[in-house]
Amino acid sequence: MNFTCSRKDLVEAFNVVSKAVSSKPQMPILSGIYMKAEGSTLELQANNFEMGIITKIPVNTEDPGEIVVTGKYLQEVVRKLSGETVNISHDESQHIANIKSDTANFKLLSMSSEDFPKVKSPETFSTFSLRAATLKNLIRKTAYACANEEVRPIFTGCCLELAGNSVSMIATNTHRLAIMKDTFDAELENLTFVVPSKTLWELFRMIDYSDPSNSVTIDCSRKNISFTFDNIFMTSRLIDGQFPPYDKVIPQTAETIATVKVAEMMEAVDRVALISKETEYNTIRFIFTQEGINISSDSPEVGRAEEQISAKIEGADIDISFNVKYIVDVLKVIDSEECVIKLNKPLSPVDIREKDRDNFIYVVTPVRTN
Amino acid sequence: MNFTCSRKDLVEAFNVVSKAVSSKPQMPILSGIYMKAEGSTLELQANNFEMGIITKIPVNTEDPGEIVVTGKYLQEVVRKLSGETVNISHDESQHIANIKSDTANFKLLSMSSEDFPKVKSPETFSTFSLRAATLKNLIRKTAYACANEEVRPIFTGCCLELAGNSVSMIATNTHRLAIMKDTFDAELENLTFVVPSKTLWELFRMIDYSDPSNSVTIDCSRKNISFTFDNIFMTSRLIDGQFPPYDKVIPQTAETIATVKVAEMMEAVDRVALISKETEYNTIRFIFTQEGINISSDSPEVGRAEEQISAKIEGADIDISFNVKYIVDVLKVIDSEECVIKLNKPLSPVDIREKDRDNFIYVVTPVRTN
Repeated sequence: MNFTCSRKDLVEAFNVVSKAVSSKPQMPILSGIYMKAEGSTLELQANNFEMGIITKIPVNTEDPGEIVVTGKYLQEVVRKLSGETVNISHDESQHIANIKSDTANFKLLSMSSEDFPKVKSPETFSTFSLRAATLKNLIRKTAYACANEEVRPIFTGCCLELAGNSVSMIATNTHRLAIMKDTFDAELENLTFVVPSKTLWELFRMIDYSDPSNSVTIDCSRKNISFTFDNIFMTSRLIDGQFPPYDKVIPQTAETIATVKVAEMMEAVDRVALISKETEYNTIRFIFTQEGINISSDSPEVGRAEEQISAKIEGADIDISFNVKYIVDVLKVIDSEECVIKLNKPLSPVDIREKDRDNFIYVVTPVRTN
Repeated sequence: MNFTCSRKDLVEAFNVVSKAVSSKPQMPILSGIYMKAEGSTLELQANNFEMGIITKIPVNTEDPGEIVVTGKYLQEVVRKLSGETVNISHDESQHIANIKSDTANFKLLSMSSEDFPKVKSPETFSTFSLRAATLKNLIRKTAYACANEEVRPIFTGCCLELAGNSVSMIATNTHRLAIMKDTFDAELENLTFVVPSKTLWELFRMIDYSDPSNSVTIDCSRKNISFTFDNIFMTSRLIDGQFPPYDKVIPQTAETIATVKVAEMMEAVDRVALISKETEYNTIRFIFTQEGINISSDSPEVGRAEEQISAKIEGADIDISFNVKYIVDVLKVIDSEECVIKLNKPLSPVDIREKDRDNFIYVVTPVRTN
């Protein structure tokens, strides 16, 4: 194998596929990047069995062939080269990849391309497309709400739900729930599947939404999902199991309704969080009265923080506490100037939405305090 | 105690004194920042016994007094406040510092100011001044060459040597040596002392050399040294013991003299370092011949890197290896376009200097290879 290509193209391609390179591989081959040169195209692949990525760049192939090289070194070396082009050739008998650019000459050990688990396209039973910007927004508004621990795997993923002309993404860790809805132009069959949040975050970083016409094609089977966009193909396993019925969690009543400026609340919460993070359960306390919202936190070891912000309050006064992270997370993704907080009892779930919009719903369970 | 001041001034003062706040304090009081308000001045202090810092800012004192508050929280809180001014008052009976700004109200636990070890001025037996830019340059060119381990404490400091109208700073970890010389306008008594490199790096970051007229006054006693500049007073312990006679280490002959473009060498070394860092001793190999310098590194597990750079070589060919870090470090601080490398045998110390200047000398011992 022997090809020459633009160094910039190669660096970008490595950045894409490296998301699926194992940092702690079960087998050495999973730490590698697979490259296949043929005619004017170089195909690059990485696969950690959780996620697989393929991308392609233009090259001049002098001698077609395949090679696998440890991703970490390959990426570092090519990133540091000074030339505009890179030549990579394979000395198969010696198991060596020769990488040349300008005055530099690297020889990296290669692995057998036959051992590399090629990325497969799933056996599709359903295909649909989403605008790149829509998909990014669905992820941004919900994926942070997933559980991090693998105790109950279903909660480490986001549920993607298609029904009629609506698409929803839902995430919960059982203490809080985030739902984001959007609509299709076309009607679709009903479909529900749970995608690992790690996959979604990698996808989020890779999708270019700069051009409004950019779209992502999604193919799914029972076990796998794949995303095709730009010159990238990414496939991921789906999470097995039934996503819990989340609709029941959304409160249907409201004894208190607060309308608050998001930026003002964010600033105050951010400061009070300095003390909250020193408490055992990251607790932040909100007292809603006709005067506005008093936000505070007490730590016996450090001290106390208190802020008073203005808000329009309808209904009863209420004294309620939360894990501060669950409040900060939602304030970060709210896109409207004001948000609406609907409360009932001090231990009942609270509903937070953007003002005058209902396509984003966040529900959070308060914390019990003494 | 009760005072009001500019939040920006206070944040800057905390940034200065926090360098001497213990992160792992032997006693809780050493994690604190001491503040004393009197008239139109607030004095701030921190002291970890290795280093002590005092700075002053203008304030409006309503009620004079002293207070000590944990530096970490104080700094975080004041940095996050939104107002232009901050009011701090002390509730002595409750041991609470009240910090108010805009809508925010923090109460942080205070400590007894009587327990705080006030920063003392050393009993001076010698005083001199250096231009801020000169002092920064002495530090930058040498302090990285100190030892990090405390095995032989004398090597964790830089030797500051005054003799006649010359000032030198010298650092070594026994494998490499850096010497930087400058001159005074006035003659000074002969004086030698060893300052901890940690102190010098903190000093380096704090000194403002933007105005060429800025100068630093240095006072020293047998045990301590202090630096006074802008509105900052910083004191540090000196390292006990005799700095080794370093002059003997500087090679007096040269069988090979190489003149090399620093930027070109740096780029090549930086790339080859990708492989060097995977070798047992960070080894990088240089072969000096009439054709220039061949730079390479071999790792049985990863592969090989090789670069060829141009250089003017006088004298014999030589094949020599180094710890790559010792080469990168010196290339980073050389200010001339070209440097001169003087070599003898493959295991003899090597002399590296800026071209046409002799006030900076770097000596490095090669690595033995098979």
